[in-house]
Amino acid sequence: MSAPLLSVSQRTRSTPFTPRVEEAGVKSYTVYNHMLLATAFRSIEDDYRHLKRHVQIWDVSCERQVEIRGPDATRLVQLMTPRDLSRATPGRCLYVPLVDEAGGMINDPIALKIAEDRFWLSIADSDVLLWAKGLAFGLGLDVDVTEPGVFPLAVQGPKADALMARVFGDATRSIRFFRFEYLPFRGHPLLVARSGWSKQGGFEIYLDEPALALDLWDALADAGEDLEVGPGCPNAIERIEGGLLSYGNDMSREHNPFECGLEQYCQLDRPTDFIGRAALQRIADLGITRRVMGLRIDGDVLPGRSGPWPVIARGAKVGQVSSAAYSPDLGCGVAFAMLDHDHWDAGASVEVETQEGVRAATVSALPFENGNI
Amino acid sequence: MSAPLLSVSQRTRSTPFTPRVEEAGVKSYTVYNHMLLATAFRSIEDDYRHLKRHVQIWDVSCERQVEIRGPDATRLVQLMTPRDLSRATPGRCLYVPLVDEAGGMINDPIALKIAEDRFWLSIADSDVLLWAKGLAFGLGLDVDVTEPGVFPLAVQGPKADALMARVFGDATRSIRFFRFEYLPFRGHPLLVARSGWSKQGGFEIYLDEPALALDLWDALADAGEDLEVGPGCPNAIERIEGGLLSYGNDMSREHNPFECGLEQYCQLDRPTDFIGRAALQRIADLGITRRVMGLRIDGDVLPGRSGPWPVIARGAKVGQVSSAAYSPDLGCGVAFAMLDHDHWDAGASVEVETQEGVRAATVSALPFENGNI
Repeated sequence: MSAPLLSVSQRTRSTPFTPRVEEAGVKSYTVYNHMLLATAFRSIEDDYRHLKRHVQIWDVSCERQVEIRGPDATRLVQLMTPRDLSRATPGRCLYVPLVDEAGGMINDPIALKIAEDRFWLSIADSDVLLWAKGLAFGLGLDVDVTEPGVFPLAVQGPKADALMARVFGDATRSIRFFRFEYLPFRGHPLLVARSGWSKQGGFEIYLDEPALALDLWDALADAGEDLEVGPGCPNAIERIEGGLLSYGNDMSREHNPFECGLEQYCQLDRPTDFIGRAALQRIADLGITRRVMGLRIDGDVLPGRSGPWPVIARGAKVGQVSSAAYSPDLGCGVAFAMLDHDHWDAGASVEVETQEGVRAATVSALPFENGNI
Repeated sequence: MSAPLLSVSQRTRSTPFTPRVEEAGVKSYTVYNHMLLATAFRSIEDDYRHLKRHVQIWDVSCERQVEIRGPDATRLVQLMTPRDLSRATPGRCLYVPLVDEAGGMINDPIALKIAEDRFWLSIADSDVLLWAKGLAFGLGLDVDVTEPGVFPLAVQGPKADALMARVFGDATRSIRFFRFEYLPFRGHPLLVARSGWSKQGGFEIYLDEPALALDLWDALADAGEDLEVGPGCPNAIERIEGGLLSYGNDMSREHNPFECGLEQYCQLDRPTDFIGRAALQRIADLGITRRVMGLRIDGDVLPGRSGPWPVIARGAKVGQVSSAAYSPDLGCGVAFAMLDHDHWDAGASVEVETQEGVRAATVSALPFENGNI
């Protein structure tokens, strides 16, 4: 079937930017952290081409912040992730896999270290707030765990630097990747990070004053007409090309960080303890038996709705596709797939069973780039 | 704007019944516990009339089960709810508000007591799994907390008893309200409860064998042609008429159970401890200052998309609407609203500020019935 309609209610929360998103002609949404997230404005392909050439404004309010604040804040955040944050200073953004006691992925937020005793976890789609609150209560930690009224607005694309400098001044140009600064807007300091869920470069503005939302959107839209600024959203094609895994799509509690290619964020031998350490150590000792890889799928078009397509080699199922899209720039389908050990080498030939027939495919390293097989 | 499109992905999980839901012509979905939930088949009004006269099959797989199992299962479940479960026996369903340490609502599941050391929490839309896992880890409890592969299918409407008896035998007729039995289907025992998220009567079948899903749907559909069985889903009009609050719409962590009219499920003086006890005792001592009530809103039609409409009395805001729909049977709009103390008495006159103008309204007890003001 074609895309169904979405019933909107209070539970599928609107954001302070929703009026502008709707005026801009949003075509479709998903629901993410109990909140609306646009998925297309013109079409996913048109949005993709625009994102890679110009600059877009994205309402990513659904990246909810879980604030962990208090004397035990560092202890709790460190318990929640295998990543060693001991050298992190305030002003840094850090990608942190969160795992449970079995090593299963709970979420993969960006941790913003606001102060020594205060973190924001900018979360993917699961209620990390409840996990953190449960741990804090059970362990008797001295922290407050809350969801503050913070609504991220992303500015993404190759012209993002130019646009941001016009609205926030040249100070934006010197913000380094995965660092944040506070910059004034209408006299109100806003946390501005060089980050975002694309590989086209850009910023995320963590708006903590909803009354400024429409002004902020308009200021960016008005300043960038000659830059061809437009509305946008995380793009289903660009994010696969760029190797950006989506929690709930490409990984879940059934997967550990090694299977998701996140080894570099796991410091098993660090001095401070964390949840899942014994499990991850055991997995590291034994080695994993599957991992996420890219697939280049032959053909000019993919079935409209991608599914959990089986990956086949020599007649046997050796994995499963989790996300797929046709890439105009690469001229083939691109996909993430969890592949068994003997079939995950880049360059291996496999087949993908879509609902509209079998397609030949080649395993690829991530991210997809013209240089990768 | 009219309803937008929904982008479906692996993250917005399909269910074992989705093929039949789509063949039956689902018009719109919401996303609930990271899973698709139908919201209309013909139209919400047509579905409403059909539900109140005949019998419907509902894919409510999104009522995910959080299984809590092990020697400390009862201890953990009792910690999570102010309701006293000490006299609950296996085979019972119990509506249990879950609250945090401040008394805020975390969820309002049905707890199914499967065995002395095993519960299913059939949850509303928040990741109770993470809350329970966090508590269990932090407190060092001897329990397994999992999301088993269980997919509830509801059979709702005045002819539900007749239909169920044809498929599961007359044993269904003797299942009492909020009790469950195991009844065989194709030789596989299925948990069948007399329950469901409507006031029209019926059952929920907790399918734990996805391979039987289409057979189960078809058996019910084929057995009920003369009963006018049809596809359905929780209905936005009927559930408001019936006083069924929706977590995330009509209550959230910002509300305590007393404000939600759930006093009867809070036994503050019970012997076993629970999270939020001190907070709820303090609230009970001081008294609440707002509570959920019904509103009958004048007029033949309501704006297409209901919003967080302010409720006004004598020029001042005294509350806010959380859900609203036009009720054909009551001949007026029906709504839930959180109302301030001085304005919550049934019969009070107020005004509702919709995006399409002000409407006169009258406060009503819940559930709405012809006898209530």
